[in-house]
Amino acid sequence: MRILLVGATGTLGTAVHQELVARKHDVVTVARSGGDLQYDVTDPAQVADLYKTVGQVDAVASAAGSVPWRPIEELTIQDYQDAVTGKVLSQVALVKEGLTHVTGSFTLITGVLTREPVVTGAAASLANGAVEAFVRAAAIEIAPLRINAVSPTVFTESLDVYGDFFPGMKPVPLADVAQAYVRSIEGRQTGQIYTP
Amino acid sequence: MRILLVGATGTLGTAVHQELVARKHDVVTVARSGGDLQYDVTDPAQVADLYKTVGQVDAVASAAGSVPWRPIEELTIQDYQDAVTGKVLSQVALVKEGLTHVTGSFTLITGVLTREPVVTGAAASLANGAVEAFVRAAAIEIAPLRINAVSPTVFTESLDVYGDFFPGMKPVPLADVAQAYVRSIEGRQTGQIYTP
Repeated sequence: MRILLVGATGTLGTAVHQELVARKHDVVTVARSGGDLQYDVTDPAQVADLYKTVGQVDAVASAAGSVPWRPIEELTIQDYQDAVTGKVLSQVALVKEGLTHVTGSFTLITGVLTREPVVTGAAASLANGAVEAFVRAAAIEIAPLRINAVSPTVFTESLDVYGDFFPGMKPVPLADVAQAYVRSIEGRQTGQIYTP
Repeated sequence: MRILLVGATGTLGTAVHQELVARKHDVVTVARSGGDLQYDVTDPAQVADLYKTVGQVDAVASAAGSVPWRPIEELTIQDYQDAVTGKVLSQVALVKEGLTHVTGSFTLITGVLTREPVVTGAAASLANGAVEAFVRAAAIEIAPLRINAVSPTVFTESLDVYGDFFPGMKPVPLADVAQAYVRSIEGRQTGQIYTP
């Protein structure tokens, strides 16, 4: 398949990229810097431009999303808005603008904080919850196009940096998270939240 | 208890108001027009002003939130942003600004579309999912203050207007939804999503 991978140069994106290439897919990588194409998908106009440049693809996989982490007393309304802009509306735009360019599936990224909160993660939880509910809703309206989310816990490979935020929570190897993308892209389900 | 009820003049707010008064609570009602106090809680500055005017309360109950309903092909990024502004950031601001004025609990409004989507409801689903994940996250950081959400399906009393959007879904009487607010306010649970 021809697959558009957004957020392709991050920790997760790199792992997903390697797996998709290993499975003989033709992957077009997008990132703010690096990758085949440089676009900032938090700007809906750039998302439209991106699809114009790329043309038709079989699948879109997103590993892109940034949110502020702060104690709830310090999170401002602007922080919550930034989480929405950085992880929710960006991925919604990938779906919306992609409806006329994608023939197969969308796979979005969320995270365990939707269902299992941690301290300083309220804006992240809010963003993940928004994307997961959107995925379930979009699935029933965009068929036969498909849409799923991958909702991992902290990566084993990131424990040294983020482990303290997830006390006692079992980490997941990046290889398992990449398999959830494979399952979404090569499988036939829709409206699913995969929790590798 | 002294309870601040926001969105007090709508279909749901009126039912919650009646029940809270019947239970001998002292209810301060807020709405864009009507009610004891007129404020637009989609403006964070007005939320701060509201608490300055009202002072200390035992509980905040929100029955306020508006979102665009449109087929997914017609929903614009601005529509999703409007849903976030109209139902998510407004209720987040009620919690954030209320942390120093509320001694007991916050009860927010979401809806069944978080988990059971319907056609034309993608922006509503996104907003509800955001608020429910926020409620779970906020609960672990604001204790001993409490926070819950009430997540009803379509109201029996609104079937004539909205029933066509919820084919085959069992409606809920407003009286039952009002009891979920009572449960949140007078009970001791936190981080719950009540589905009356």
